[in-house]
Amino acid sequence: MRINLSELVLQFDLKLEGNPSQSISGVAPLDKANIEQLSFLSNSKYSSQLNSTNAGVVIISEQMRNKFEGNKLIAKDPYVAFAKVASLFQNSNHSFTGIHSTAVIAKTAIIEENVTIGPFSIIGEDSIIKSETVLEARVTIGNNCIIGNKCLFKPNVVIAYDCKIGNRVIIHPGAVIGADGFGLAREDKGWIKVPQLGAVRIGNDCEIGANTTIDRGTMEDTILEDDVRLDNQIQIAHNVRIGKHTVMAGCSAVAGSAKIGKNCLIGGGVGIIGHLEVCDGVTLQSMALVTKSIKKPGSYSSVAPIQETHEWRKSAVRIKQLDKLAKRVAKLEKG
Amino acid sequence: MRINLSELVLQFDLKLEGNPSQSISGVAPLDKANIEQLSFLSNSKYSSQLNSTNAGVVIISEQMRNKFEGNKLIAKDPYVAFAKVASLFQNSNHSFTGIHSTAVIAKTAIIEENVTIGPFSIIGEDSIIKSETVLEARVTIGNNCIIGNKCLFKPNVVIAYDCKIGNRVIIHPGAVIGADGFGLAREDKGWIKVPQLGAVRIGNDCEIGANTTIDRGTMEDTILEDDVRLDNQIQIAHNVRIGKHTVMAGCSAVAGSAKIGKNCLIGGGVGIIGHLEVCDGVTLQSMALVTKSIKKPGSYSSVAPIQETHEWRKSAVRIKQLDKLAKRVAKLEKG
Amino acid sequence: MRINLSELVLQFDLKLEGNPSQSISGVAPLDKANIEQLSFLSNSKYSSQLNSTNAGVVIISEQMRNKFEGNKLIAKDPYVAFAKVASLFQNSNHSFTGIHSTAVIAKTAIIEENVTIGPFSIIGEDSIIKSETVLEARVTIGNNCIIGNKCLFKPNVVIAYDCKIGNRVIIHPGAVIGADGFGLAREDKGWIKVPQLGAVRIGNDCEIGANTTIDRGTMEDTILEDDVRLDNQIQIAHNVRIGKHTVMAGCSAVAGSAKIGKNCLIGGGVGIIGHLEVCDGVTLQSMALVTKSIKKPGSYSSVAPIQETHEWRKSAVRIKQLDKLAKRVAKLEKG
Repeated sequence: MRINLSELVLQFDLKLEGNPSQSISGVAPLDKANIEQLSFLSNSKYSSQLNSTNAGVVIISEQMRNKFEGNKLIAKDPYVAFAKVASLFQNSNHSFTGIHSTAVIAKTAIIEENVTIGPFSIIGEDSIIKSETVLEARVTIGNNCIIGNKCLFKPNVVIAYDCKIGNRVIIHPGAVIGADGFGLAREDKGWIKVPQLGAVRIGNDCEIGANTTIDRGTMEDTILEDDVRLDNQIQIAHNVRIGKHTVMAGCSAVAGSAKIGKNCLIGGGVGIIGHLEVCDGVTLQSMALVTKSIKKPGSYSSVAPIQETHEWRKSAVRIKQLDKLAKRVAKLEKG
Repeated sequence: MRINLSELVLQFDLKLEGNPSQSISGVAPLDKANIEQLSFLSNSKYSSQLNSTNAGVVIISEQMRNKFEGNKLIAKDPYVAFAKVASLFQNSNHSFTGIHSTAVIAKTAIIEENVTIGPFSIIGEDSIIKSETVLEARVTIGNNCIIGNKCLFKPNVVIAYDCKIGNRVIIHPGAVIGADGFGLAREDKGWIKVPQLGAVRIGNDCEIGANTTIDRGTMEDTILEDDVRLDNQIQIAHNVRIGKHTVMAGCSAVAGSAKIGKNCLIGGGVGIIGHLEVCDGVTLQSMALVTKSIKKPGSYSSVAPIQETHEWRKSAVRIKQLDKLAKRVAKLEKG
Repeated sequence: MRINLSELVLQFDLKLEGNPSQSISGVAPLDKANIEQLSFLSNSKYSSQLNSTNAGVVIISEQMRNKFEGNKLIAKDPYVAFAKVASLFQNSNHSFTGIHSTAVIAKTAIIEENVTIGPFSIIGEDSIIKSETVLEARVTIGNNCIIGNKCLFKPNVVIAYDCKIGNRVIIHPGAVIGADGFGLAREDKGWIKVPQLGAVRIGNDCEIGANTTIDRGTMEDTILEDDVRLDNQIQIAHNVRIGKHTVMAGCSAVAGSAKIGKNCLIGGGVGIIGHLEVCDGVTLQSMALVTKSIKKPGSYSSVAPIQETHEWRKSAVRIKQLDKLAKRVAKLEKG
């Protein structure tokens, strides 16, 4: 793949300052790019690299354009523009197309046109796989599922029975959708399992990270609305609902029956307790613990950042004494 | 599946107030149920929904019975009763029974009667799979394992060599039992791997969540006693022992050689440091970090809940100064 | 496997005090070992067990040798010596050798001599598997990968396209190497995916735990240098670089573009924010959150340890008031 800047201008509606016949064959960061590669500046932290970059062209914002002498493509949002241009250089990397001879497909399953089902995949009874969807390899689809069109499921993805997945959903390796929620009732002699009779419903344009787990609901479905994006190793418990466009970074966990609003940005390692509500437009910083519902949009944090361990030990001891300390201060104030 | 209330009374030893010929075909939450569905009230937070529910019958406690006018089934523990009734509406959802032709089974393995081994499963040498156990699909059983009867292992479960699993154990997709513990010894030139010569032993009636990992012991076995229930994405390190009836929520982690007592309730994202002991009857709140042994039953917590980020920044700075602040207060007290 | 102490002395260059013709057939902890088993003392916490152990021989340091009367093997580092001796008792536990008939191998793949490719494995186009490597079962190697020699990949390991793995690398079940990094750009109508055009490069002698995930880079590769050791359920985001000999315990997470130095010891559940640098020789205690670059070697901590919940509630309230409390103290000091 090789493309001239003049062609990029046309395809992506960008403004070029520089040589329209410069050709590009790939992308690279500013400090690594060569004359055949495109780069971009989005985080101003890296702006000093503009002086020394060898990139054939840089995607840059209107505000920063004067900081760079070389070929530049001016974009309202350089990161968005980069995402679109970079997609030209992405191969499908599927080594296989069609229905592999080793796949085990129930007779009652409906496989629409142009679907790929890779080696060792299993499709359950009465399930529907809509057109142009790719199940790369070793994908399990349980009974009675509906998988939308143009989906891409990577190796070892498991979708349990009765789940419904929208269109253009990407699911990375090892993700498990629709395992039983963690429901237990206690009798004298021990725990008994609460049947999990709901399923999981995932909207259009969602992306689910590697080894992420989304449990089926107890009586209703666990729901991801459209354009929800989950990173790797996330745990979504039963009966949770996550609103449109909400994004969650790796290793976060949402406990049972919590409701998360739209357009939330949830950092890595965040914990959200069960049965809470988080309103639209909330940002949660990394490893924050949400123990009460959040009703006001904004940014929230909880975990204190690191200290050197010998200093931190002193702080940790004092935290335990904090209530007493506050009372001592109150006493001093009274004289 | 459709059943009359009079039949539920007989099967589950419940007390009915209302119409014995009302029939039920499923379950739903109070605010969603229709006349054909059964619901329950366990968490009093939802009691206001009793006024408006359309449920055909509600399972309710003796104490709450007066709050509801409709058909009701009175139970000592409505959640336990619900769990039992709901199991009537659960399908097995296995699309396959018997030994699938694609399974790779060692000649020396012993497969007892009425076992299901689904597509692409692998059974190692000298392993025993006891009667009525179901390995749904793509399950790996290493060499020399014993798997009890009436177990249910979901797709992509891996049991490494020499592990022993009790009866009626449920293991969800992607769980890994018996991978090597994380044992390393340092030489000048780098790390050397410490062989992990123990295995994993899991008691009867345990449940292991999706993508949870339980490592094999170094010299002895890692042990889960009977009726231990682990949620998804939990990490149990080598040589750990977990007592009967202990329950652990998602994303918790127990480091090497820690011993956890019986009847503990461990919240999500909890961390327990290696070589510690947690006694019987301990509750750990979400994301708590246990750095010393706990010798007294009770509830323990550590992480502070969220504040708005701009407020939290002030708190975070002050935490680092806490030791100095306490000394300043002591000085003031001395006059 | 049975071996005399005189033979261990020769093979591992140890010093024996005791009976050279004592034979050993396995290993066990001090408090469980019998006369046929070898044990070791490394953690002085367990030294009282020397008095009562029945072990046939104990590996012990020069300093501790006088505390034990029985057969002893004296070693500079008893844990290192134990690791080496114990490896004698480890079986390969592979039930299969060679290329399994069910494996799906691209015609353009190059499989060197003495490679094992277990059942249901998939090898992509143009990939190279070097000599003596074992892919146990159900391993996926994408297109255009290079896998070094003497590697051992366990069931359900996924290596996506274009990744390069060094020699003698061990990867445990369910680990996913090279899934897309979590790159999203926001347009008015929703998120768009940023293509992840880099790959993952893993050095020699690395070990990757069960269900750990290492994402491919956006433009460059995500890199693990030689002898990096990752435990289970770790998340390494795109563009991260981890230096030689660094060890990371379970459930830790490193966000995008962070750089971790050499010889770091990173505890369980640690979080490292994106775009930071952690210098060589840093120890991070369990569940610490790193929000700024660390430029000085040493030990760092952040999370306060547990209190009983009713005490902790008081502390938690006071943390939120800490800035006000500090101001009140300052006012008192002014008189």
